[in-house]
Amino acid sequence: MAYQGKKLINDPNDVVTEFIEGLVETYPGLQYLDGFPQIKVVLRADVLSAPYDKVAIISGGGSGHEPAHAGFVGPGMLTAAICGDVFTSPPVDSILAGIRAVTGSMGCLLIVKNYTGDRLNFGLAAEQAKSEGYKVETVVVGDDCALPPPRGIAGRRGLAGTILVHKVAGAAADAGLSLADVAAEAKHASEMVGTMGVALSVCTLPGQVTSDRLGPGLMELGLGIHGEPGAAVVDLQPVDVVVSHVLKQILSPETKYVPITRGSRVVLMINGLGAIPMMELMIAAGKAVPQLQVEHGLAVDRVYTGSFMTSLDMAGFSISIMKADPAILQRLDAPTSAPSWPVGVEGDRPPTKIPIPVPASCSRKTNERTFNEPQELNEQGCMMEVAIEAAANEIINLREKLNEWDSKVGDGDCGSTMHRGATAVLEDMKRCYPLNDAAETVNEIGASLRRVMGGTSGILYDIFCKAAYASLKGNQVITPSQWATALEASVAAVSKYGGALAGYRTMLDALIPASKVLREILDTGDDALKAFLLSSEAALTGAESTKNMHAQAGRSTYIAADLLSSVPDPGAMAAAAWYRAAALAVENKLRPSETEQL
Amino acid sequence: MAYQGKKLINDPNDVVTEFIEGLVETYPGLQYLDGFPQIKVVLRADVLSAPYDKVAIISGGGSGHEPAHAGFVGPGMLTAAICGDVFTSPPVDSILAGIRAVTGSMGCLLIVKNYTGDRLNFGLAAEQAKSEGYKVETVVVGDDCALPPPRGIAGRRGLAGTILVHKVAGAAADAGLSLADVAAEAKHASEMVGTMGVALSVCTLPGQVTSDRLGPGLMELGLGIHGEPGAAVVDLQPVDVVVSHVLKQILSPETKYVPITRGSRVVLMINGLGAIPMMELMIAAGKAVPQLQVEHGLAVDRVYTGSFMTSLDMAGFSISIMKADPAILQRLDAPTSAPSWPVGVEGDRPPTKIPIPVPASCSRKTNERTFNEPQELNEQGCMMEVAIEAAANEIINLREKLNEWDSKVGDGDCGSTMHRGATAVLEDMKRCYPLNDAAETVNEIGASLRRVMGGTSGILYDIFCKAAYASLKGNQVITPSQWATALEASVAAVSKYGGALAGYRTMLDALIPASKVLREILDTGDDALKAFLLSSEAALTGAESTKNMHAQAGRSTYIAADLLSSVPDPGAMAAAAWYRAAALAVENKLRPSETEQL
Repeated sequence: MAYQGKKLINDPNDVVTEFIEGLVETYPGLQYLDGFPQIKVVLRADVLSAPYDKVAIISGGGSGHEPAHAGFVGPGMLTAAICGDVFTSPPVDSILAGIRAVTGSMGCLLIVKNYTGDRLNFGLAAEQAKSEGYKVETVVVGDDCALPPPRGIAGRRGLAGTILVHKVAGAAADAGLSLADVAAEAKHASEMVGTMGVALSVCTLPGQVTSDRLGPGLMELGLGIHGEPGAAVVDLQPVDVVVSHVLKQILSPETKYVPITRGSRVVLMINGLGAIPMMELMIAAGKAVPQLQVEHGLAVDRVYTGSFMTSLDMAGFSISIMKADPAILQRLDAPTSAPSWPVGVEGDRPPTKIPIPVPASCSRKTNERTFNEPQELNEQGCMMEVAIEAAANEIINLREKLNEWDSKVGDGDCGSTMHRGATAVLEDMKRCYPLNDAAETVNEIGASLRRVMGGTSGILYDIFCKAAYASLKGNQVITPSQWATALEASVAAVSKYGGALAGYRTMLDALIPASKVLREILDTGDDALKAFLLSSEAALTGAESTKNMHAQAGRSTYIAADLLSSVPDPGAMAAAAWYRAAALAVENKLRPSETEQL
Repeated sequence: MAYQGKKLINDPNDVVTEFIEGLVETYPGLQYLDGFPQIKVVLRADVLSAPYDKVAIISGGGSGHEPAHAGFVGPGMLTAAICGDVFTSPPVDSILAGIRAVTGSMGCLLIVKNYTGDRLNFGLAAEQAKSEGYKVETVVVGDDCALPPPRGIAGRRGLAGTILVHKVAGAAADAGLSLADVAAEAKHASEMVGTMGVALSVCTLPGQVTSDRLGPGLMELGLGIHGEPGAAVVDLQPVDVVVSHVLKQILSPETKYVPITRGSRVVLMINGLGAIPMMELMIAAGKAVPQLQVEHGLAVDRVYTGSFMTSLDMAGFSISIMKADPAILQRLDAPTSAPSWPVGVEGDRPPTKIPIPVPASCSRKTNERTFNEPQELNEQGCMMEVAIEAAANEIINLREKLNEWDSKVGDGDCGSTMHRGATAVLEDMKRCYPLNDAAETVNEIGASLRRVMGGTSGILYDIFCKAAYASLKGNQVITPSQWATALEASVAAVSKYGGALAGYRTMLDALIPASKVLREILDTGDDALKAFLLSSEAALTGAESTKNMHAQAGRSTYIAADLLSSVPDPGAMAAAAWYRAAALAVENKLRPSETEQL
C-alpha cells in the first residue's frame, strides 16, 4: 500500500527555502542570507548592524527537523542556523557564509550533531574559516542511547539532546564568556545528556512515497531522526511501558552513556518527532517524572515538553535526560527570545494539584443510603427497575451501531457517550436510586447521565429529567396521564434550552411523536400499556424519519444532505431505542403471557 | 482498511487527566483542581493564594485540541481552563468548580466556542454561578468561514480564532479593566476574526479505529476541529493554491463574515491541527503573507504560526485572519507567560533577507567563459566529454534503484542526491568545463557535485575530485598511469577524511578494488583500455560484495545485519556504475568495432 505521501507543500525541492521564508515572516527577530537555493542561513536580525561582540553560536544540519535549528536562533541561544536540504548536511559554502556573517572578534562555536556528513562539512568549513582568520571551535554532540557502543567510524548519533547543548552554549555566550569557556561548557553539557526515541510511523520525504515499513499495531524503538529504521520493531505498548523501557535504556549502567546515578538531579526533555499531538507528549511527560523519581531515585528539576527536534511527519517522541547541576540549570533558565525554546518552564514546581470543595453528588448520597436503608421495592419501584434496566441495556447493546452512524454525520462518539450514561445509570441505580419514588429516581437519572456523559446529550438529558422531575414531584403513585404530562414537559424543556424544533434532526424527532401519540391514545381511554407501546413505535418511526431531514442543530448541520440521507440521527435512534425498550419491558412484566399477541 | 488508531497513550479513558498531569509537571506556573476524573480544571498557580483582584478569564470545552485551552493559562491570558472529555463539553459542575476557584470581586468572563454543548454547559454554569453571587459575563466565538450562513439553531462554529480572543481578553483583564469593558473588548475581537481549515487526514479518537474517509490524493476543505467531515473533499493541491482558496473564502464579500476590506490592517494565524510538521505551517505562512498583501491589498501586522487549537492527530491547518487596530495590536503584543502563546512575534518586521558576498563559484566563471571562449575539443577533450556524459547518464538512469536500496539501509535519498549531482555535471559541462584540461575539469566536477549534492556524498566526491586534481594538475595530456595515480590519491583522500577503510560498506569498496586492478594490469604492460574495463568490472564486483559486509560508516551502521545482507551499499553501486559507464564509453569511442568481442 505504498502511496504518494500527502503534504501541504508546493515543489518538494523548495520546502526548505519556503520554510525559511515563512519563518522570517512569523518572527521579526530573524533574517536570512540572500543566497537561495544553495545558501540557506537563518540569523539574528540584530547582530548584523555592528560587529558582534560575543561568541557566536552556530548550529545546523539537514532540514526536516523543524523547529531545529532555525527556531532556536535568538538572543541567548543560537546566533545562526545553517539549513541543509531535507536530511542532507548543508554544503561547506553555506556554513562558511553563516560563519562570515555573524562571527566577530570573540569567534564562533559550531555545535554539530554527530553524523558523517555534518562532521565533514562543518569540519571543512571550520578549517577554511580558520584559514581566513576567524576563531572557531567545534563541539560534536552524540547523545543517542538506543544502540550498543558503536563499531567502526560512526559514533553515537546526535539527537534532541543537542537542543539542550544549544541552550547551555547560547546562555554562556550571552553571559560574555570567552570562546574557550563557551566551548568547554557546551562540551560538558554534551557529555551529560542521553536520548532515545520511539515512533509509531515512518516519516515521508517531500515528494516521495510513504513507506509501509511499520504496519498496524507496531512501533519502533531506538530510531534516529532521518527515517532510518529503529533498533527494534515491537508490538505497540501502553505509553507507561514505553516510557519505562526508554528511561531504563538511557540510564543503563551497562552502557554508562550518561553519568547519572541514584540521587542525581536531572532535567527531562520529551521531544515530539513531528506528527504527534501535544496531548500524547504531555501524557509521556506526566509518566516519566514519577518514574524517574520513584524507580530511578532522581530529582527532576526541569521538564521540557514539546516538538524541538523532529523528523518530518513522524508520529513519536524521544526522551532526553541531562544530568543537572546549578551551573547547567542557570544556563537552561537564562532568558532567551529564541522562538521555539519553551516558555514558563523555569523555576521550582509547587504542588501540582489543589483541593476543591466538590459539590454534593449522587455518589455521596449513595454511600449514606447504601449503609442506612436497603430498599424493599413496591410495585411501582419494581416497574421502575425493570424499565430502567431494559432501557440501559438496550443502549449498551447499541453502542457500536450508534458510533457508526455518528461517525458519518457527527464526531463518532454518540454510542460511547450513551453507553457511558447507561452504565452509570445501572451502577447508580443499584447503589442509590430511591426506586419507590419515581420523581426522585428520574431526577437522579438526570444527575447520573450529566455526570458521566458531559457534552450536549448529557446536559439535554439532565434537562429532560429535571423537567420530568418538576412535573412528577410529590406524587407517590404516578398515573399514565401524569407520565404523559411529564414527557410533554421534558420535550418542551429540551426544545427551549437546546433550541431545536420538530424536524431539526435531533432526539426530539423521536420524543415529540412519542409524546403526541401517548397523549392521543390515553385521551381515547384506551389501555395504558397499549398507549405506551404505540407511543414507542411512534418514537422509532420518528427516529427513522430523520434520514429525510436536513440537520438544523448539532454538528450534523455541517454535513452534506446526500450523506445525511444514508443514516438516521443517532441521538434520535438512541432516544427511541431506550424508550421502546422500557415500554416493552413494562409490558412484558405486567402481561408476560400476552406479549406474543401484540 | 479500518484499523485501530495508533497512539502513545495508556487507557483511552484517561488521556485528558494524564495530559493535565504532564502539563503541570512541565509548567510550574500551572496547577489543577483535585477533582479527577469528572472535574478537570487547570488554573494559574499564583491566583489561589489571595482573592483575585482582576477579571478572571475562563475558557474551555472538549479536549483533543491541545494546547487549547490549558496551554493558554497564565498571567496575561486565561486564568483557568475547563477541560471536557475528548470532543465533549465539560459538565456544568466542572465549569462551576473553575468559576468558584478563580473568580474574585471583579467577576469572570467565560469565552465559549460556539457549539451547542458548550453553550448549554457554560450557560447553565454561568446562571448557577450568578445565583451564587458571582459576576459573570459570557462571550461566544463563532469564527468559522467555511460554510454559508447557517440555517436553524446552529451558528458558525468556534475555531482557532478563539485563541486570539483569549489573548485580547486576557490582556485587557491584566490591564485592570472592569468586567463590562473586558467583555466588550472580547466581543469586539470575536467579531473581527474569521477562520477556515484544510486537512489531509481525519483524526482518530483515542481507542477507536482510524477512519478511511479521506483516501490518498485527497484533502478536505472547511472542516471543523471535532473530526466532522469538511465542506468539500477535493484533490490535493499545492499549498499555494490551498492558501489562496482559503484566504478568498475567509475574506469573501458575499458572506461578509469579517469586516475586512482593501487597505485594512490584519493579523494572520496559521494553526496546525495536530499532526502537521512545523515545516508545512511555515511554508503556508510564507505564502499567505504576500497573497494578503498583493492580492487582497492588506497590511499584515503580525503572523502567528504554530499549533494552537488542534484536532487530535489531524494533518492540516486552519488560517485565521483578524482585523487589527492599534487597540487590538496592543492586547496581542502585551506580555504573557501562558506557555503556548508564541514568542518573538511582536513588533514590526525588518527586511526578511539580507545580501551576502557569495563566494566565487563555477557558475560565475562559466558565464565569463561562455561569452569569451567557445571551446574546440582536442582528442582528450572529446574523451572527457564522452566519459562524463556516459557516467552522468548512467547515474540519472539509476535514480530509482539507488533510492530503493537506500530506503532499506539509509535515508532513501541516495539516488535523488546522485541524480542531482549528475544533472548539474551535465549542465555545467556544457557551460563551463574546460574539457581540454582534464585536471581543471575534474576539479570543476567536484565543485558541481558539492554545490548541488551537499551531504556526505557531495563532500566526499569533492574531496575525491580535489585529490585527483592535485595529482593531475599541470599535465596537458594524461597518461593511463597518471590516471591510475590520480585514482589512488582520490581513494586515499576519501579514506582519510571520511574515516572508512575497505570492507566498511562504502563507495570505497567499489573504488579500492578498481584502483588496485587498474594499477596491476597497467604494471603488466597490458592494453590500457582493457585495464580500465577490467578495473571497472572489479568496481562492480566490489560494490556487489558490500551485501556481505557489516556497515562501519554512515547511517547503515544502525541497521540490522540480516536486513543489510539483502541489498548492496547504494553508494558503492553508484560509484561502480559511473566508473563502469565511463570506461565502456571510452572503449566504445576508441574501438567501436571491437566492443562486441570483449
